[in-house]
Amino acid sequence: MRNWLCALNYVGTDYAGWQRQPQVASVQAEVEKAISAVANEQINTVCAGRTDKGVHANQQIINFSSQANRSANQWVAGANTHLPSSIRLMYAQTVSRDFSARFSARSRWYQYRIYIGECLPAVLHDRALLHRQPLNCDAMQQVGSYWLGENDFSSFRGSGCQAAHARRRLLQWQVQKTATGIVINVCANAFLQHMVRNMVGTAIAVGSGQKSVAWARDVMLARDRTKAAAMAPASGLYLHAVYYPSASGVTLPNAIDVFAR
Amino acid sequence: MRNWLCALNYVGTDYAGWQRQPQVASVQAEVEKAISAVANEQINTVCAGRTDKGVHANQQIINFSSQANRSANQWVAGANTHLPSSIRLMYAQTVSRDFSARFSARSRWYQYRIYIGECLPAVLHDRALLHRQPLNCDAMQQVGSYWLGENDFSSFRGSGCQAAHARRRLLQWQVQKTATGIVINVCANAFLQHMVRNMVGTAIAVGSGQKSVAWARDVMLARDRTKAAAMAPASGLYLHAVYYPSASGVTLPNAIDVFAR
Repeated sequence: MRNWLCALNYVGTDYAGWQRQPQVASVQAEVEKAISAVANEQINTVCAGRTDKGVHANQQIINFSSQANRSANQWVAGANTHLPSSIRLMYAQTVSRDFSARFSARSRWYQYRIYIGECLPAVLHDRALLHRQPLNCDAMQQVGSYWLGENDFSSFRGSGCQAAHARRRLLQWQVQKTATGIVINVCANAFLQHMVRNMVGTAIAVGSGQKSVAWARDVMLARDRTKAAAMAPASGLYLHAVYYPSASGVTLPNAIDVFAR
Repeated sequence: MRNWLCALNYVGTDYAGWQRQPQVASVQAEVEKAISAVANEQINTVCAGRTDKGVHANQQIINFSSQANRSANQWVAGANTHLPSSIRLMYAQTVSRDFSARFSARSRWYQYRIYIGECLPAVLHDRALLHRQPLNCDAMQQVGSYWLGENDFSSFRGSGCQAAHARRRLLQWQVQKTATGIVINVCANAFLQHMVRNMVGTAIAVGSGQKSVAWARDVMLARDRTKAAAMAPASGLYLHAVYYPSASGVTLPNAIDVFAR
């Protein structure tokens, strides 16, 4: 019995999210079907971040146990012959028996992509948020200074969130201007349901001049999810990378950043 | 009767190419159907570069004449309600009666995208070429020094090419390293059928060490299309921009470069 870690890349548009659910297509169901076919036994996976419907992953991490005697290359090549083109298994390695893609993770990094212009280009359809007015990048960056650190993020928590408490440690909030818009990089030890999208929606309310930077601080302090701005749509969100302690022996390749030069 | 210029962005995967053909889906047929619906009359378009099956466009330029009294915004918003999500009309402006998207163009700029790794990520499926071995960027750049200027490009000409002659002026050949691979920028006054893809295929033969830089020069000098390397696939190719003389009054927005930071 060996414990395997795999890195996945996917376009979430056609899926109801990571998690297996009856009657609808999920990334987890496709991945477990493909890996089970290679293993020739039923495989159950654990993932680092349960992405929502329509959310993409530059690098999602999973682990699973299997009795099958396969090499890393066999998992990668084999699973990809069974996966739809919207999901790719990019990497595999063995990890210790106690490694969990979810519980061993120290932090998760998400990217949110905003295209600024009159009309969303076809090459970004379902892959970025269209925003028609200019956004004040500096104000959106400042917002993060109030949110960084360990805080109660109840104001940015989805109503279906099943977490025991709302305290999370926000490690990074970086708002980057790109040639065609804005990319927001957000890193935390863990995230609540819809947390990134609610934060991004609130930052956009500030960036567009509707609300002040101080308001964004007050939203967090209120610990009340009726106080935040409307949640940003799923299509702009990418699970970008997951970090593990170096002692876990994980040697992941860099996450794919199609926006990076 | 007014002459309109429009800029289009499209993902070419599901089309047999720009040009209208019986029985198959084409970008031209979709665009003319959409614009005709807005104009309430039959519209015929002229394009700057007839992209092949599976080739994308960050910015394709077209022009058409219409009696319909519409504003630039009405063409853009109206056409997009009729277009599939893989094609967007991004911009419209009036131009002089003698302006032709094809004949007024001074030069065309194409991009070719190569992802280097074991497996093409899902987010680049049908949108980049996968190359499994490292490529020597400098050697691929040097190749261009032999090709730049006005030359007979018969060696890079597709067998179905209907151009009167094979002389073209190659204005730019830039091989750029990116975080995940290589982007080649190619600009010329005009291109022969399959010219960019044949040049890229030949440059890859040099970059992978199979062939020398001098060989790539000899390929061009041979004026014989059996001498070039295998043509690179359509999926990595993007018509990126088209340049017009400043006197033509064209005030296009920048082409969308999803790879640019």
